[in-house]
Amino acid sequence: MLVVRMEERSLSLDMARVCEILEKQGCRGRMVPHPEGVCIVAEEPREGTGEIAVLPGVRQVICTGNSFPLGSRDMAPQKESMELAPNLRIGGGNVVVMAGPCAVEGREQILEAARGVKAAGASMLRGGAFKPRTNPYSFQGLGHEGVALMAEARAETGLPIITEVMGVEDIEGMLPHVDMFQVGARNMQNFSLLKALGRCRVPVLLKRGMTATVDEWLQAAEYILAGGNHRVVLCERGIRSFEKRTRNTLDLSVVPLVKSLSHLPIIVDPSHGTGLRDLVLPMSLAALSCGADGLIVEVHPRPSEALSDGAQSLDIPTFGDFMQRVEQLLPALQADPKEKTCPLKIAM
Amino acid sequence: MLVVRMEERSLSLDMARVCEILEKQGCRGRMVPHPEGVCIVAEEPREGTGEIAVLPGVRQVICTGNSFPLGSRDMAPQKESMELAPNLRIGGGNVVVMAGPCAVEGREQILEAARGVKAAGASMLRGGAFKPRTNPYSFQGLGHEGVALMAEARAETGLPIITEVMGVEDIEGMLPHVDMFQVGARNMQNFSLLKALGRCRVPVLLKRGMTATVDEWLQAAEYILAGGNHRVVLCERGIRSFEKRTRNTLDLSVVPLVKSLSHLPIIVDPSHGTGLRDLVLPMSLAALSCGADGLIVEVHPRPSEALSDGAQSLDIPTFGDFMQRVEQLLPALQADPKEKTCPLKIAM
Amino acid sequence: MLVVRMEERSLSLDMARVCEILEKQGCRGRMVPHPEGVCIVAEEPREGTGEIAVLPGVRQVICTGNSFPLGSRDMAPQKESMELAPNLRIGGGNVVVMAGPCAVEGREQILEAARGVKAAGASMLRGGAFKPRTNPYSFQGLGHEGVALMAEARAETGLPIITEVMGVEDIEGMLPHVDMFQVGARNMQNFSLLKALGRCRVPVLLKRGMTATVDEWLQAAEYILAGGNHRVVLCERGIRSFEKRTRNTLDLSVVPLVKSLSHLPIIVDPSHGTGLRDLVLPMSLAALSCGADGLIVEVHPRPSEALSDGAQSLDIPTFGDFMQRVEQLLPALQADPKEKTCPLKIAM
Amino acid sequence: MLVVRMEERSLSLDMARVCEILEKQGCRGRMVPHPEGVCIVAEEPREGTGEIAVLPGVRQVICTGNSFPLGSRDMAPQKESMELAPNLRIGGGNVVVMAGPCAVEGREQILEAARGVKAAGASMLRGGAFKPRTNPYSFQGLGHEGVALMAEARAETGLPIITEVMGVEDIEGMLPHVDMFQVGARNMQNFSLLKALGRCRVPVLLKRGMTATVDEWLQAAEYILAGGNHRVVLCERGIRSFEKRTRNTLDLSVVPLVKSLSHLPIIVDPSHGTGLRDLVLPMSLAALSCGADGLIVEVHPRPSEALSDGAQSLDIPTFGDFMQRVEQLLPALQADPKEKTCPLKIAM
Repeated sequence: MLVVRMEERSLSLDMARVCEILEKQGCRGRMVPHPEGVCIVAEEPREGTGEIAVLPGVRQVICTGNSFPLGSRDMAPQKESMELAPNLRIGGGNVVVMAGPCAVEGREQILEAARGVKAAGASMLRGGAFKPRTNPYSFQGLGHEGVALMAEARAETGLPIITEVMGVEDIEGMLPHVDMFQVGARNMQNFSLLKALGRCRVPVLLKRGMTATVDEWLQAAEYILAGGNHRVVLCERGIRSFEKRTRNTLDLSVVPLVKSLSHLPIIVDPSHGTGLRDLVLPMSLAALSCGADGLIVEVHPRPSEALSDGAQSLDIPTFGDFMQRVEQLLPALQADPKEKTCPLKIAM
Repeated sequence: MLVVRMEERSLSLDMARVCEILEKQGCRGRMVPHPEGVCIVAEEPREGTGEIAVLPGVRQVICTGNSFPLGSRDMAPQKESMELAPNLRIGGGNVVVMAGPCAVEGREQILEAARGVKAAGASMLRGGAFKPRTNPYSFQGLGHEGVALMAEARAETGLPIITEVMGVEDIEGMLPHVDMFQVGARNMQNFSLLKALGRCRVPVLLKRGMTATVDEWLQAAEYILAGGNHRVVLCERGIRSFEKRTRNTLDLSVVPLVKSLSHLPIIVDPSHGTGLRDLVLPMSLAALSCGADGLIVEVHPRPSEALSDGAQSLDIPTFGDFMQRVEQLLPALQADPKEKTCPLKIAM
Repeated sequence: MLVVRMEERSLSLDMARVCEILEKQGCRGRMVPHPEGVCIVAEEPREGTGEIAVLPGVRQVICTGNSFPLGSRDMAPQKESMELAPNLRIGGGNVVVMAGPCAVEGREQILEAARGVKAAGASMLRGGAFKPRTNPYSFQGLGHEGVALMAEARAETGLPIITEVMGVEDIEGMLPHVDMFQVGARNMQNFSLLKALGRCRVPVLLKRGMTATVDEWLQAAEYILAGGNHRVVLCERGIRSFEKRTRNTLDLSVVPLVKSLSHLPIIVDPSHGTGLRDLVLPMSLAALSCGADGLIVEVHPRPSEALSDGAQSLDIPTFGDFMQRVEQLLPALQADPKEKTCPLKIAM
Repeated sequence: MLVVRMEERSLSLDMARVCEILEKQGCRGRMVPHPEGVCIVAEEPREGTGEIAVLPGVRQVICTGNSFPLGSRDMAPQKESMELAPNLRIGGGNVVVMAGPCAVEGREQILEAARGVKAAGASMLRGGAFKPRTNPYSFQGLGHEGVALMAEARAETGLPIITEVMGVEDIEGMLPHVDMFQVGARNMQNFSLLKALGRCRVPVLLKRGMTATVDEWLQAAEYILAGGNHRVVLCERGIRSFEKRTRNTLDLSVVPLVKSLSHLPIIVDPSHGTGLRDLVLPMSLAALSCGADGLIVEVHPRPSEALSDGAQSLDIPTFGDFMQRVEQLLPALQADPKEKTCPLKIAM
């Protein structure tokens, strides 16, 4: 496919001209807003792009063999970091650790968790207000009330917050309170939701579907990017396999694979990815060693009382040890081993 | 779990009394509207249900070991048929054949397809107006315009229509035109959408997720049933496997398995299920032989020109032969082999 | 690839000439014995096969795009039957039903089973003497003693027998007693065993590996064919899937798929394929409806006492009903629906 | 299950007495030779083991909930190392790196590879002489000639050698030359082969089957252990998944999972595990970070000319860089993070 990057100051007339030439060759151009200047995405015209590259207002013409042009590495060959919240960046050596309970269960629980993970050095607070549950009769989360409780935890601790959005109809009410939206594995191909998030200007964490291929995942991300929201972070959370001892099978090989295909940051969820508390630390170290830009970890003040996912949640002291072990490993790792870049650090 | 079926004429007071007794035993009752009288669903109380069974307004107390009480076979031990549209029933010996193109591409195409499948003996017209596409730059369907074209085809041919709904925000606009909603495999666990469809009174065809277990599928159906919409039909459309020659792996064993677990009708989609035109007929015959209540088949006036799924679509003459072969087989099959029930027939 | 079929009376000199010409073009010819005349298999030479077709002793030159030339449909475009034992053929309308216990447990058990399945109309007796068990401490079968007991059951009932072979070292001792060898799913790619069976002249039932693709399976069959043993029957026995209610997921779509790719007969094992007794009949009817050439069914005189696989075994009266239902369906099915061939019948 | 460990000097009479008491309770004892004294394995008797524990000659009675008693962690709660060859141990902080070509292709190739990997610091030389190929017409390896060439490479470089064994009939000829046998993924449940290897006294590397669960894998190892060969090393080599960009999906979560269940060492094959040269280093670092005891890596003097697996092979200079990166990471890792053990080092 083809991405035509326009100058920041390019005119509507310039864009129209590009689209016109594409159309002559049978390709429909699609305009995508971007802070550094509109992008026009289209199929690659057979007769080449030479004519387009020299048009007024055109900054760059990028051809890519991938089906996810805006998300492909060709769009940003060098590693860059992305802003998730004021003073919090991911990538380029900044390792983001998101931590908190599976579900927001009440005021005390989320505040206690927030204080605990903040003290241990986490970068963001996670917590589920809208819960995608297999069974309709299971606890479905506190909804907008849960979001408000997370906002309160943010106000107290200063931690940016991330929480899952399940429906288009919930976005508007969540927007004022949320630093980052999470899309769960089951909704990875909920295209209606992805399109709506593409129209927002809040970063999105897109979890991989339970049996999604990397190409399907990056095309799902492309739905958001194609709407003009260029802040998408990917999250590997384990795939469905035949193994019964673990909840899912964490597929760390997608970390270096995604990095070779895309400029989007990628983090790993070792909690859902394994379902076993004792595997959270070793798999986190492994994730960072093969290049992950961050982790999202379930931490609960009292895992045994958790309404969901207790067996995979760390308590707060264990999370403190966890952060220490992560910090001990980071100096041995580099943001880009090929170049002598600075070692990794936890983003805060 | 537990379902308390109330008399049709039972009073709010009666229901409140049931919930109160459940609550005393720590179980929250959930009221579900039903044409034959409200149902109250709850966890099974430890001290038994004897006290509840004798309360005024209570018709029946049903205990089930399944996590999908309303959809479980315990709710309707004998096989019954379900109305999909005026004069069109599924189940109880009525085999429903839904046929039509993958996508509504234009007025002529859908009308031609509708006339063709009507003449060949199909029960319903299928066609996609909102298309869930892996890639954001692929043809996304004609949307509400496509729905209107289907409605026109219905007006001309008399065939009831079924089409996919992808987002909560689209339901209202589709409701006046659609006889049956389809939920696609990718949205099987889009709980926001399932809840919204539970509030409608239009039948829903719920496709199985690409790697969903039967229990996950029946619990997804339960989301719709728990909203008070009791007309859910299941559709096996192939699971993801390692085989590369077929698009998916049609899992016919779920047909008798679902029938042993649930009273919901189940049909089979041999088109998506195999992705290969030549496998559509043998797999359809197999599906009916192991008890499927119907088929949903892709038929296109000119498969080679189809905007999507051409390789698995039958043309209209081939669909005519297909229907003949199906009709030849039906007399050898019985709605319930254990009892000497009448042989199957195509519903029209 | 390429198969050069030689005349039955062709000379060594003729074969050497073919190989020489192939070698000139960089292709190594491999000679495969065949009752109708040697076959020479090789990569397809770039410069074509014209020169070879006119050589003395060459009957036919067959080019195929498949990686399993001897097993490919191109070798035998018309449907033919294969002899499994004197007076017992499979294919061409002959449906073979193999029935018997999972394991030979003792003299009385196997004789009782043999008499029962014979009376009900089975074509062959199955029974495991060497048992591939996941755990080394589980019952491993009676070994050669079990084979001898099966031979005794054959002597009494006249039923040809089929049993699993697990190791090259066991073949010689089994050869005098066995009508057909079975290769289990776990050994589908035990190439050492396949090569040894290729040197035998006894038919082989090759079960599909638990997650094998059709191409891997047909290439495994090719190992046997390439050794000169041309009597290979394929058996679908269920693939590993994520479903927990069934033991495996029976993949019936491979039946018409294999038939389109290969001339080898294919049968279905609904017992291992589902693991549930109640699914054996519906899935058997489905298998025959989509073209299977036979069934292999577990039958035990007293399933509740079986040392293995009791939950999926039919007792003898149920197997009698099973055979009746199968016989009722067969007249509605045809060996080759495209041509008006005679209806199917059970081979005996 | 139950393991009764006998004293080294225990008498046959003592063992017979243990078996007798087990039998009284309906449990058959199975005697397994072990260098530190015979073990008797049996089902756990219902009436407990008190009577056995006090018998003469009994050192220890170990009960385990697992189906792989000899391989379970209960047999060796503390981490110990295992001897693979004189002066070469695995585990307990010794990281073993096995390196070499996929297939032995000729004298020069294997000698060049051996010298290269030796110079870079590898612990062992790998190379395939018997090759399990999907297609019977593909290069099948040099067989015993290839084994002899590996032995020559060992004589020159001093590197112990590991190579795959595919059939029971090949073991005897290989025994004098081989330091360690490899069992490939396709043969993980070739029980005939496992039993034969259980009778050898050469260490065995048991690769995980393509879709094997951890329990199936550990039970396969138990087949070897139950024969009296107690030196089994496990190797994760990627599972089959739906991802198409990688050859397999490397499942690193089994590393800490296996370590929690078993005392057997576990290594990782990032070459087959990913199929992509660029993923070998990051996944190797990840493997060691989550606790792997070693790596097995494909290295070829000229990957582009390799007869098999070129795309995943490192050339010799790249392998040199690879070893440097591994050595840089090791000091940050510990053999047992819970206790303050010494850091890891490469075994040589």
